[in-house]
Amino acid sequence: MPNINAGRLLSDLRRLAQFGAYRTGVHRPTYSKEDMDSRRWLAQQYEAVGLQAHIDGVGNVFGTPRSDRRSLLIGSHAESQNHAGWLDGALGVIYGLEIARTFAETPDCASLPIASVAWADEEGHYVSMLGSRSFVGDIDEAEIDRAGNVDDGLPLREALRTAGLAGVPRSLAEPERYVGYLEAHIEQGDALEASRKRIGVVTSIVGTWQYSIVFHGIQNHAGTTRMAIRRDAGVAAATLAMAIARRFPEVAGPRSVWTIGRITLDPGAPNIIPGKAEMLFQFRDSEMPVLERLDAVIRELVEETAIKTGCRAEIEQTETGKPWHMDPAFQDAIENAAARRAPGAYVRMPSGASHDAQVVARKLRAAMLFIPSIGGVSHHWTENTDEADLVLGCQVLADAAETILRREGQPMGEEALLNDHG
Amino acid sequence: MPNINAGRLLSDLRRLAQFGAYRTGVHRPTYSKEDMDSRRWLAQQYEAVGLQAHIDGVGNVFGTPRSDRRSLLIGSHAESQNHAGWLDGALGVIYGLEIARTFAETPDCASLPIASVAWADEEGHYVSMLGSRSFVGDIDEAEIDRAGNVDDGLPLREALRTAGLAGVPRSLAEPERYVGYLEAHIEQGDALEASRKRIGVVTSIVGTWQYSIVFHGIQNHAGTTRMAIRRDAGVAAATLAMAIARRFPEVAGPRSVWTIGRITLDPGAPNIIPGKAEMLFQFRDSEMPVLERLDAVIRELVEETAIKTGCRAEIEQTETGKPWHMDPAFQDAIENAAARRAPGAYVRMPSGASHDAQVVARKLRAAMLFIPSIGGVSHHWTENTDEADLVLGCQVLADAAETILRREGQPMGEEALLNDHG
Repeated sequence: MPNINAGRLLSDLRRLAQFGAYRTGVHRPTYSKEDMDSRRWLAQQYEAVGLQAHIDGVGNVFGTPRSDRRSLLIGSHAESQNHAGWLDGALGVIYGLEIARTFAETPDCASLPIASVAWADEEGHYVSMLGSRSFVGDIDEAEIDRAGNVDDGLPLREALRTAGLAGVPRSLAEPERYVGYLEAHIEQGDALEASRKRIGVVTSIVGTWQYSIVFHGIQNHAGTTRMAIRRDAGVAAATLAMAIARRFPEVAGPRSVWTIGRITLDPGAPNIIPGKAEMLFQFRDSEMPVLERLDAVIRELVEETAIKTGCRAEIEQTETGKPWHMDPAFQDAIENAAARRAPGAYVRMPSGASHDAQVVARKLRAAMLFIPSIGGVSHHWTENTDEADLVLGCQVLADAAETILRREGQPMGEEALLNDHG
Repeated sequence: MPNINAGRLLSDLRRLAQFGAYRTGVHRPTYSKEDMDSRRWLAQQYEAVGLQAHIDGVGNVFGTPRSDRRSLLIGSHAESQNHAGWLDGALGVIYGLEIARTFAETPDCASLPIASVAWADEEGHYVSMLGSRSFVGDIDEAEIDRAGNVDDGLPLREALRTAGLAGVPRSLAEPERYVGYLEAHIEQGDALEASRKRIGVVTSIVGTWQYSIVFHGIQNHAGTTRMAIRRDAGVAAATLAMAIARRFPEVAGPRSVWTIGRITLDPGAPNIIPGKAEMLFQFRDSEMPVLERLDAVIRELVEETAIKTGCRAEIEQTETGKPWHMDPAFQDAIENAAARRAPGAYVRMPSGASHDAQVVARKLRAAMLFIPSIGGVSHHWTENTDEADLVLGCQVLADAAETILRREGQPMGEEALLNDHG
């Protein structure tokens, strides 16, 4: 039975948090110097465990076992949102490292191969889930050519070149090499804390649909243009925002969420009537029919707003993540481990956040484990989790990994069927 | 009688428009290389007319006559809004140059001293009306120390240093040296065009009151935070925008205008609930009681919105321009000239836009003349005016200048009383 080393786990989590440390959190955008330094450091740790480490063409860091048995891939993403928390994806990355290390030094687990991974750009500084999407073959060179940084527009190609990844091949999933994929993450919400649970067994991951909505009005002088003849694109944006706030609660599902993350008025000067307004809008739900209904409603509201305000409107869907259900047998393995290590302190729950697991699940059997976020805070430098929960989560995931590998682990190539589900 | 040189006027207008040319307009932000090049070019033109040229510590360019008689100051501002029109303030600046030149070469006007000026940063890239406010002694070094560029935050001090103005003294108005101030400008609205008039005699200039309004909510993950517990600062901003759109028409004056020029959501990422929202808001009117009423209403709406949305609100007034009435005798001089040069094609009107004239009027008698803007377009690179109107406006202003100087012009020091009005 694998017993993880709590001290080593916590010190590695804190070590990784030093790359791009910001107040009590981290600022480690994808392909920044801090991000690439942390990926090279991770590669060294994988090597130290005896894994074969390599960084692929989009920055994914893999640590693969030297074994003829199919391995269980464990990890998450290494970069952070801007000025965000020290755990988030980093938690799952260090869990993958610690579990590989624990198995390697535990005699009766040494033959159970663990592979570790740190995905790139799950946070979408350039392309959401870039690393895992590349791994499952869901991204082509043309999309990489088109992509730029969401904050400063820096072309992804240039960022990859600066990061030393130009020309490096991207690693594609070889399903026959893996039993499946496990990912741990902080909940990023307050459900576990509110219900006094310590482990969440993820049942499904919501789909996120995202839109760029642009209103074109008439730019003019804010002092000399009579109110009666204005076509103010900013007023159109505010009108749509209020229409969403009024209408969405009527048509959304019980767990649906929606957010306007950005509003940009052009030219953005105090004495000029905005001629153009751009909004970034998204909604999430775990059920396709709900997502499709909300898609119809937002398009309808944009059209109504355009007519009402006399501004021309454009709506472009920029992201359409499918909701994904986690592997039932893997969920059981996590739940049984939780029942042993934290009796009565675990719960099955959907994930309101997107995760690499929903992408990897297209090719490999996959499941996720959540631990509590203090106050439900996430994507902010104050994000945190109790040390006891950090340790418990890793131990539960290690136990689940053992169960899965003992039951499913076989020489490669003998489970083709199982892997054809995605 | 001064007859301006139409060809020379138009070619100088086009020459000035080459500094920072952008499509059919100009991009000449205050203290940019293009702006400073244009100011040095203007100084050369003033010298060529026989005026004494100098650029002061905030970039104001003065061309002062070598004469013991009190002169009439004529000009406007030389910089442009970003990617804006070729006329705007440049029109009045070149009028000042052309009129000085015309008087110098017209025998019976040669003894009537014209002073020319090109103010700096009326457009407020750093501080609205910086140049004219400095001239009337309404700005101190501390305000200059605090100021930064509205777009990129570059400190004003650094911009002045780069422009070569560090340590250069700022010129203060000496009322005894001037009979008064005349400024010409495009209307920037469609009132003249709509009423088929070619000359506007400005009666008063509106006051512009500007505010920075900030809502503080709770930044959190856009996928895991239930709608019920959100404190979305962006929703608060949109709620206020709609409250303004609903309430202001009920309390505003017949000519009041109001504009939200910028909305910034922080951090501005698609999958993060905005924790902070900042809005730039302004309104204008020519009557103080109306301005005071609107001030009370916006503060009331901000408070209501904060309570309604659970976000903490801050409102800071960043600009409080007093409305200002133009000098009656100067208005008559412009109107009489218009009656001679364009019978029936002139009208008295207030200015919905702010102008340096309202600042200079605190120290000198002042008046303004408007010419039509095609389609009322302003602060946009498509801004334009018929050549015939460009020429007519300059001629009318030259005639008015002659009338004023013949009536008011006397050796310095003998009109102390007249200049104590401001």
